[in-house]
Amino acid sequence: MKSIETRRSIRKYSSREVTDEQLDRLLELAARTQTMGNLQLYSVVVTRDIKMKERLAPAHFNQPMVTSAPVVLTVCADFNRTTVWANNRKATPGYDNFLSFVNAATDALLYTQTFCNLAEEEGLGYCFLGTTVYCPQIIIDTLKLPKLVMPVATITLGWPDENPPQSDRLPLASFVHNETYSDYTAADIDRFYAAKEALPENRNFVEINNKETLAQVFTDCRYTKNDNEHMSETLMDALKKQGFIK
Amino acid sequence: MKSIETRRSIRKYSSREVTDEQLDRLLELAARTQTMGNLQLYSVVVTRDIKMKERLAPAHFNQPMVTSAPVVLTVCADFNRTTVWANNRKATPGYDNFLSFVNAATDALLYTQTFCNLAEEEGLGYCFLGTTVYCPQIIIDTLKLPKLVMPVATITLGWPDENPPQSDRLPLASFVHNETYSDYTAADIDRFYAAKEALPENRNFVEINNKETLAQVFTDCRYTKNDNEHMSETLMDALKKQGFIK
Repeated sequence: MKSIETRRSIRKYSSREVTDEQLDRLLELAARTQTMGNLQLYSVVVTRDIKMKERLAPAHFNQPMVTSAPVVLTVCADFNRTTVWANNRKATPGYDNFLSFVNAATDALLYTQTFCNLAEEEGLGYCFLGTTVYCPQIIIDTLKLPKLVMPVATITLGWPDENPPQSDRLPLASFVHNETYSDYTAADIDRFYAAKEALPENRNFVEINNKETLAQVFTDCRYTKNDNEHMSETLMDALKKQGFIK
Repeated sequence: MKSIETRRSIRKYSSREVTDEQLDRLLELAARTQTMGNLQLYSVVVTRDIKMKERLAPAHFNQPMVTSAPVVLTVCADFNRTTVWANNRKATPGYDNFLSFVNAATDALLYTQTFCNLAEEEGLGYCFLGTTVYCPQIIIDTLKLPKLVMPVATITLGWPDENPPQSDRLPLASFVHNETYSDYTAADIDRFYAAKEALPENRNFVEINNKETLAQVFTDCRYTKNDNEHMSETLMDALKKQGFIK
């Protein structure tokens, strides 16, 4: 897993095909990931059809890699399969609740990341689209997801046709705590964020957004309170429609 | 990442130490995982103190590996650090909402799984404790997690002192869908679950639990409707207390 040291998100893909054989092998191998009660509370919907990619694109703010990637994977928290199994086996399932969503979403995300680690090790490139939970209803309708199935991750996948710089990371001490969580003082924040704030690309980011600080770019432009609150409601509504919340 | 092919959860650990050097190296390397806006919306609390392990154990139904593992890691969805950063940089954060919890939990779980894959590749063994979200308040109090920090994953880690059989997995066709989700017929369920239901250990599981079908072991004993509904409320309450839901 040396590839993790140099990993970057890949948004441009070459014309080289991702074969079904390779994709299936990686999807199957990733299923060795730990899963609650060996139930594998996830499903993957594979999108190769350009028409389907075009229908998914708006859910991902029309980021170009959704239509340009050879493969789009939507990984879903899935308690439907287990529920149908139970209903066919004289068992009474009770998975139409919030805890079951969190359990299935956990399974789905752990599975997703093993898949990403495996794909990268083979030289494939991917981009993880966090937008999946922003407008989930478009995805649910397009992929015809039944109740108790909820999209939680989207991966665009292909052979890399770019080699972008690695993005910055905070120092280890900023996110690891010993025995108890020690909250951050102003001095901690200065120390932990100094390198990030000093990076030329981040300084440029502040300038082109007409802001005073890098944090303002995040709070005022990229992930605003208004957007977050609006999309929290949208997400809750989708969870209700999918049967995970009453 | 050949290790994924033979992976199993490890619950018994040898007396061999997991050094701080190794642990820190893996925790730092795992942070190469993709993260929302490079914000790294997670924190890891490292537990080595036996007294702290004993306090965490009840949250994990006193499973013995919590106290016997040399290291316990609690990975948290963390929007506190980003919020403190914003507050110190003339920015107005808006991350006290449900979408922000899901974003941070996603970051935390992807990070967790890269860490698991890296640890396993070095020969370490781990067990992922799904119990983390069942009684989160005990963990929150023990680790002194502030608002906007929520535990989502626990890993017990050490050098393996057992070599258990691999657990079963469903066939690929059962969890991969092409273009749209195709719901499961009774015949699909028979086909996909036949091998699992025929396994001697699963037949034994049915017998010792005095049940008729394997699915009933899950619905009636392991993950019951009553427990799930009760713990859904507990989880929602914890998310409210941690400031992620109003």
